Amino acid sequence: MEKYINIYKNDLLNDIIPFWTKHSVDKEFGGFMSCLDRDGSVIDTDKGIWQNGRFTWVYATLYNEIEQRPEWLELAKHGVDFLDKHGFDTDGRMFFVVDRQGRPIRKRRYVFSESFAAIAYAAYYKATGISEYADKARTCFDIYHRYTTVPGVMEAKFTDTRKTRGMGGPMIGIATAQELRKNIGDEQFTSYIDAWIYEVRKYFINEEYQAVMELVGENGELIDHFDGRTLNPGHAIEGAWFIMQEAIYRNNNQELIDLGTKMLDWMWKIGWDEEFGGLFYFRDVKGLPVQEYWHDMKFWWGHNEAIIATLMAYELTGNQKYADWHKQVHDWSFSHFPDREKGEWYGYLHRDGRISVPLKGNIWKGFFHIPRMYMMAWKICERIQKKQ
Amino acid sequence: MEKYINIYKNDLLNDIIPFWTKHSVDKEFGGFMSCLDRDGSVIDTDKGIWQNGRFTWVYATLYNEIEQRPEWLELAKHGVDFLDKHGFDTDGRMFFVVDRQGRPIRKRRYVFSESFAAIAYAAYYKATGISEYADKARTCFDIYHRYTTVPGVMEAKFTDTRKTRGMGGPMIGIATAQELRKNIGDEQFTSYIDAWIYEVRKYFINEEYQAVMELVGENGELIDHFDGRTLNPGHAIEGAWFIMQEAIYRNNNQELIDLGTKMLDWMWKIGWDEEFGGLFYFRDVKGLPVQEYWHDMKFWWGHNEAIIATLMAYELTGNQKYADWHKQVHDWSFSHFPDREKGEWYGYLHRDGRISVPLKGNIWKGFFHIPRMYMMAWKICERIQKKQ
Repeated sequence: MEKYINIYKNDLLNDIIPFWTKHSVDKEFGGFMSCLDRDGSVIDTDKGIWQNGRFTWVYATLYNEIEQRPEWLELAKHGVDFLDKHGFDTDGRMFFVVDRQGRPIRKRRYVFSESFAAIAYAAYYKATGISEYADKARTCFDIYHRYTTVPGVMEAKFTDTRKTRGMGGPMIGIATAQELRKNIGDEQFTSYIDAWIYEVRKYFINEEYQAVMELVGENGELIDHFDGRTLNPGHAIEGAWFIMQEAIYRNNNQELIDLGTKMLDWMWKIGWDEEFGGLFYFRDVKGLPVQEYWHDMKFWWGHNEAIIATLMAYELTGNQKYADWHKQVHDWSFSHFPDREKGEWYGYLHRDGRISVPLKGNIWKGFFHIPRMYMMAWKICERIQKKQ
Repeated sequence: MEKYINIYKNDLLNDIIPFWTKHSVDKEFGGFMSCLDRDGSVIDTDKGIWQNGRFTWVYATLYNEIEQRPEWLELAKHGVDFLDKHGFDTDGRMFFVVDRQGRPIRKRRYVFSESFAAIAYAAYYKATGISEYADKARTCFDIYHRYTTVPGVMEAKFTDTRKTRGMGGPMIGIATAQELRKNIGDEQFTSYIDAWIYEVRKYFINEEYQAVMELVGENGELIDHFDGRTLNPGHAIEGAWFIMQEAIYRNNNQELIDLGTKMLDWMWKIGWDEEFGGLFYFRDVKGLPVQEYWHDMKFWWGHNEAIIATLMAYELTGNQKYADWHKQVHDWSFSHFPDREKGEWYGYLHRDGRISVPLKGNIWKGFFHIPRMYMMAWKICERIQKKQ
């Protein structure tokens, strides 16, 4: 564990945080630019609202949970100020992308901008105690909750001929509510978490195929088309640790440990590439060809989530299998993703681990999955070490 | 030329047409299913309206231009009947995907379903002389024209902060109008073609970068963000031959030959992979990293279009360079894409030519680019042979 603690701590503090802090902070127009080339130079000045919420959350969380460095608090303020000023449309909904000056470029039908803003505001409230930010976090959470749970509020991608449910809604809901509960300190969020875990269990856990589904019919039935058969192992494994994290919060609740480790077990089996190592991006639940073109690529974030999930499962169960899986995904990740010359991780690898594209950030890849993994993995390893 | 004529003719008649006719025709519910596994078995019964228009166009065009086989006319009727019955929403717009029974699944803001239905109806009118199909073709064309040319009619992807123009609108417009002019026999379509060629020349031909842009600002300016810098060589080369085809129609009009070959020259240089061969899917106009994950993959359809374009450029100019390029893209394509064991072409290869996914069809890949290439390349080779 000592070896892992050193890696996670040192990389986070000496590589990841300095890389993004140096290259992403827009001192002229506020907020963060996440579209960076290999060396950190900005190749697209547009600002994703997802990423601006996530950057803000990371800086505030570093301040809250790692060390109260004034610089981190200032950077979190830099983030909430930009969200306040440029994140919202006049209807209260948030944008998806704005330009460098903060003018809206794109708004989408779904509400993940709101979920990431909610955790950003909540963490900033925790850091400062300014109650207005707790209110903002609740407002964003309410929109997220309403859009993902009240039928008909969110514009549907498909017609009513085929009513669907997506795993993303309840899954990100659980993690968002956990953050708000922790940082605002309001136990009422537990009831939302209960409802979303119920939804995951009832609709997305497919015992027949031993798989966590991503898109199902209204009653959880398999949609036997490309979209319905497509599994996302990294995403499901992320969901697994959200549930294990809830187990920890509830004094190692056995039902939740069983649910989380089952999700991990199934999706590890489906997602791990026995030939080249690493986790596939998509797999078909019946083993049929996948329609999405990048199905066999290896993306950074699924590996971040698998490192957290395997460690957490090991912490909760003591089962050596999870320590072995952690070593396996840690070793593969650390021998393929980090760029030891220019800093940070590459994000997009081919199946065999070769780099597909040298960029360090874009509208999807920013300062979130990697620092969250480093923070959490470091802390979990410390807890495991303490118990040993 | 004899060698090529034999390949194009034999593969088309003995492999491609039988493969799709055997596996895709839905005798129970009408229309065509394009989502096929390697061996042709249906892996998703949903029906794309693009594909149903395209299948119909191919069968009617085979009947009109290759041989008046009753089977092909029947299959074209099978297609128009399905489009008539299930293609349209109550507002006159068409759907994007319907289920096997023809119930709507998805409708999109853009109008390519309408463009492919227009060419399907026009070719079926040519085959049968039933004037109602000419009217239907005109109706679909009018929607396509209105949505792609009248500002504000089509819902924009981006806000008004950044007004954009896409190459797809004028480019597919040219090809659609050419088909309607040919099959309905109405010269009025030439004026639409003039306007769209004017638009391509004015806004998408970037002399500074020697590139055909895909997405530009309202006045043709470079949008220096991921989306604006992303080039699609296969798409631009397809556009090049639509314009060369217009040159042929206008008695080898030199200005159009110059425009079409310039587009081909530029995008061949940008798109051809000197290391592994084949055409990249996306390139950045400034050589920066591309955001789309499949940027370096090799897709079937761009290669189909490059085979047509290089042959057409050779026919029009007699320049040996184009014969060499044709050989280059023909050889690479025919040594990587066709599945000589199970029939048809694979669609999705990794950069080095390895197969990414064994399927033969999905919602994007159907019976269109490949048979169109075989038909056109066969006929162009015959014309070149005659002149020699």
